[in-house]
Amino acid sequence: MYSTEFRIRVRYAETDQMNVVYHANYITYFEVARTEAIRELGFTYREMEAMGVEMPVTEIIVRYLRSAQYDDILTVKTQLRTLPEKHHIDFYQEIFNEKGKLITSGKVTLFFLDKATKKRSKMPDILRDKLAAYFM
Amino acid sequence: MYSTEFRIRVRYAETDQMNVVYHANYITYFEVARTEAIRELGFTYREMEAMGVEMPVTEIIVRYLRSAQYDDILTVKTQLRTLPEKHHIDFYQEIFNEKGKLITSGKVTLFFLDKATKKRSKMPDILRDKLAAYFM
Amino acid sequence: MYSTEFRIRVRYAETDQMNVVYHANYITYFEVARTEAIRELGFTYREMEAMGVEMPVTEIIVRYLRSAQYDDILTVKTQLRTLPEKHHIDFYQEIFNEKGKLITSGKVTLFFLDKATKKRSKMPDILRDKLAAYFM
Amino acid sequence: MYSTEFRIRVRYAETDQMNVVYHANYITYFEVARTEAIRELGFTYREMEAMGVEMPVTEIIVRYLRSAQYDDILTVKTQLRTLPEKHHIDFYQEIFNEKGKLITSGKVTLFFLDKATKKRSKMPDILRDKLAAYFM
Repeated sequence: MYSTEFRIRVRYAETDQMNVVYHANYITYFEVARTEAIRELGFTYREMEAMGVEMPVTEIIVRYLRSAQYDDILTVKTQLRTLPEKHHIDFYQEIFNEKGKLITSGKVTLFFLDKATKKRSKMPDILRDKLAAYFM
Repeated sequence: MYSTEFRIRVRYAETDQMNVVYHANYITYFEVARTEAIRELGFTYREMEAMGVEMPVTEIIVRYLRSAQYDDILTVKTQLRTLPEKHHIDFYQEIFNEKGKLITSGKVTLFFLDKATKKRSKMPDILRDKLAAYFM
Repeated sequence: MYSTEFRIRVRYAETDQMNVVYHANYITYFEVARTEAIRELGFTYREMEAMGVEMPVTEIIVRYLRSAQYDDILTVKTQLRTLPEKHHIDFYQEIFNEKGKLITSGKVTLFFLDKATKKRSKMPDILRDKLAAYFM
Repeated sequence: MYSTEFRIRVRYAETDQMNVVYHANYITYFEVARTEAIRELGFTYREMEAMGVEMPVTEIIVRYLRSAQYDDILTVKTQLRTLPEKHHIDFYQEIFNEKGKLITSGKVTLFFLDKATKKRSKMPDILRDKLAAYFM
């Protein structure tokens, strides 16, 4: 399993008039944390796009348990539970508040797409090699 | 069943560098369409909050099938398939492009919450009465 | 002078915990209204980008006089006071609420940029021709 | 003078189809940096709101010189050049990229507002005391 954690502070812009983080903004927190999870492998999503591989999101499932507020520091936990063998990759993500309480949990599925042809692709070897060490 | 449609034009701000709508923005389109679905009943979500009832989102499931682009006109179809009897309500939502192709489909669950106590509540009678006619 | 009006309804996502529209979102309303101002000329910004001309924003000046709230219908007035002769274009924009009160006023300057070279360009002839009629 | 710096990494969500940061998002970066500038004084904007003082933005002037891209680390420099004596406060803000090049510069004016009465107020004494040391 590959697992990382990343901390994000809630911005004023991300709140709504219910005085909590607007629900769609957690989806962005998830994306930021995935970017950092890849970076921790010594590779970046930016480099992957430059290599011609895009990763559009194809499915999200999110459960909202508690609310977060302006200026809270949230911890986003990002897990890969299996090494992707095909054209898609599943990230399991959870967001915790400063008291360690679970705010939101989700599963985000992305496809590997060839940027030029827009056809399904596979995980680039460079990323696969870096991840493989975590699944032995 | 209660079913409505609402059209939304994609804003430049909603695109990302993949030249398509950023995936979290469809969640906002869903929310805009729910607001309009309630308005078509002759009631508004704004009035509901003023009455002391909030509706936080508790779960979303979204599948992304195709991408939408800047300036596209999207049609968001919003359905209630059952009359909510308890503290939650399930919206089934689909987004189509101008060619009638399905872009995104989702299910969004919201809770009725008492604004003062932040405890689970029920659908306000005024909304229930308006909806009941569609489920006879 | 070329002047148009466009109506926008405030989304829940655009509010913040001050119960009003978050200030940066008015900048997006301005952009949406500029898109529509160009469309009313019988041309679209999307076509302009397809022709190889981009219009990045180079300066904004915005004054906030009153606040707007969720579900308000705002009217964005967009004016060109002079026909652009050089590489930039100035839009004067005002946002009014349903009572006709001025919410926000601004001036937005954009450059015409060659998409391929990223160098300053000029207003495309097709847009210039359509606008010229308003400045005779 | 009071001057602070804060680093922000560009999120994918903040880009647009021009492959750069969407212009309105810099306004949010400015706001995030102001929050941190206040925090460095040993006080927080969140506490200020809890004390009954809100700070709505009343004017922004922003010049865009260069573009920033996904995954860039930006440095936002925030300055107070004078100690506010009245009901408003002026922040001078600049955003630099990793090469030290100026991306965006702006001036943001905010009012001190009494949260209960929504009338103009003054800078809370606790904040004034902390700032005064920088203007002697």
